[in-house]
Amino acid sequence: MRYEELTIEGRNAVMEAFRSGKTIDRLYVLDGCKDGPVQSIVREARKHDTIIKFVAKERLDQMSETGKHQGVIASAAAYKYAEVEDMLKAAEEKGEPPFLFLLDGIEDPHNLGAILRTANLCGAHGVIIPKNRAAGLTAVVARTSAGAINYTPVAKVTNLANTIEALKKRGLWFVCADMGGELMYRLDLKGPLGLVIGNEGSGVSRLVKEKCDMTAAIPMKGDIDSLNASVAAGVLAYEALRQRML
Amino acid sequence: MRYEELTIEGRNAVMEAFRSGKTIDRLYVLDGCKDGPVQSIVREARKHDTIIKFVAKERLDQMSETGKHQGVIASAAAYKYAEVEDMLKAAEEKGEPPFLFLLDGIEDPHNLGAILRTANLCGAHGVIIPKNRAAGLTAVVARTSAGAINYTPVAKVTNLANTIEALKKRGLWFVCADMGGELMYRLDLKGPLGLVIGNEGSGVSRLVKEKCDMTAAIPMKGDIDSLNASVAAGVLAYEALRQRML
Repeated sequence: MRYEELTIEGRNAVMEAFRSGKTIDRLYVLDGCKDGPVQSIVREARKHDTIIKFVAKERLDQMSETGKHQGVIASAAAYKYAEVEDMLKAAEEKGEPPFLFLLDGIEDPHNLGAILRTANLCGAHGVIIPKNRAAGLTAVVARTSAGAINYTPVAKVTNLANTIEALKKRGLWFVCADMGGELMYRLDLKGPLGLVIGNEGSGVSRLVKEKCDMTAAIPMKGDIDSLNASVAAGVLAYEALRQRML
Repeated sequence: MRYEELTIEGRNAVMEAFRSGKTIDRLYVLDGCKDGPVQSIVREARKHDTIIKFVAKERLDQMSETGKHQGVIASAAAYKYAEVEDMLKAAEEKGEPPFLFLLDGIEDPHNLGAILRTANLCGAHGVIIPKNRAAGLTAVVARTSAGAINYTPVAKVTNLANTIEALKKRGLWFVCADMGGELMYRLDLKGPLGLVIGNEGSGVSRLVKEKCDMTAAIPMKGDIDSLNASVAAGVLAYEALRQRML
């Protein structure tokens, strides 16, 4: 996989990118623009569940590298996303119970990069992120992942709750990190497992939490509310790994 | 404690800051300046082991908020540093074996902030950082510490190896995180403990490592070299906490 940030500008180039099947992380469109070709691009983007941001001309001008954006700029994934199916296959080939990370809206690219490192080093078979309101595989994430992005596959899904539902049918159990839960040492984290980490500010969303089989509490002996999200992911993942190693 | 970034400019103000005992994180001095008052400030700074940076006039002009730096700008700690002695006292008052973090050159303020959160939540009595080549208690650290900076004392020492030596005489054992060590689950991390975390790029320095009683390896099942420094600190600290809770 290659390491670069891809900005695609101009109506033809952006439309072509969508048609070629390239993963577009974000589409920036001139706010209020009613031109036919731009409207077609917006329709195409909606078809692909791409996040669309309607922005002022100044913003587009600022983002533009060529100076010829024609009202549309697409930001493509610097890395290729994987499929959840491939992760299950990788686990099967290794003869290991599937171990996946699901990130319920990690927004800070540094946290995403750090979590990819953790996922790689504790032997997870992949990381699943939602399309919306989450950091994607940008150049910053690639850099902070210290190479993990080249080894640990990342899949992007439209609805995390639905993905959990589907994976439960394949035998996975889901645990989310949340203060109200059972002390993590008392949970059985050894089998086919999906580990759910919540957003930096708001934690795990209600819909996703309801789908989880277990809620794990990380012990807290201090005064503040929560660990950094990538630290919490690391602490819980390593408790799972400890149990798996014994 | 208050939350602010303090820049002190001008010869009198900077000299006064040193004399009043304020902790100066860094002193910026006009490169090549031989003026008497500036030389006196440099001598004073050396006496306090302050990091001195000799920089070009353009750099000072850029940093200056008043436009009247007269060749010297001091950057003061946004927070008050604690003494190592206070940490030991706090442990004693709580009837707990001392549990300290020693950061051997954490440079990224986001990592320092995240580690302060971890130190607070796993019940550590304090965090010790070196004066040189390390992030200090800046506004960024305060923000990323999510309040931990208000509860968990941070001490700044001139020489980490010497501090370890002194604390050993007070009964503490020291463990550092390093790949070549014993698997962390097999170590006894229950007593009076100093947990040493290395620099983001180069790990624990040789001199500090030689002072440590134990080297703990975090299991690594993946392809890359290392966890993010704040994640590694979290994983090791929580293994210590797990043993202490049992």
